[in-house]
Amino acid sequence: MNILIAYDVNTETVEGQKRLRRVAKACTEYCQRVQKSLFECYINAEQFEKLEHLLINIIDNKKDSLRIYLLYGARERFVRVYGIDRYIDFEKPLIL
Amino acid sequence: MNILIAYDVNTETVEGQKRLRRVAKACTEYCQRVQKSLFECYINAEQFEKLEHLLINIIDNKKDSLRIYLLYGARERFVRVYGIDRYIDFEKPLIL
Repeated sequence: MNILIAYDVNTETVEGQKRLRRVAKACTEYCQRVQKSLFECYINAEQFEKLEHLLINIIDNKKDSLRIYLLYGARERFVRVYGIDRYIDFEKPLIL
Repeated sequence: MNILIAYDVNTETVEGQKRLRRVAKACTEYCQRVQKSLFECYINAEQFEKLEHLLINIIDNKKDSLRIYLLYGARERFVRVYGIDRYIDFEKPLIL
């Protein structure tokens, strides 16, 4: 599964800053950071369920926003990238 | 078409702050802001091409990141939302 995780965490409080770090840390286990608050993940259904559950339990529903997008088809079908691109496509042959 | 526009604009300079405002303004013409730097758009192919062209010409390729995602299927198939949700689904019946 190709998944996109986007979040806006309210960092006006120390707790909010902690939530932001925990959300980012949770995402880095399975996903690649492609923008400040945006991660792309190539994961299986079990990993996705685990990550989703983890993130839901970190955010504050009244202060934060978490949007998870399910992306379908091959990469070139679902994303167009302009400017700086931090994504490494591990499916492509590695040219040494 | 359902489109998601995500951007990270480098605002260290006055020009960068101007680019950020112009990107956001361009998106608001067709799309709904769902997070700080994230817009969801329900648009036709012609509008999409116009908006994409506009955005490509605003950003600085060396400093900014623009990622455009094409979302397929019905909303419940491509997005899961937790916490604050700013999106208004105009396709749903309006309950007065």
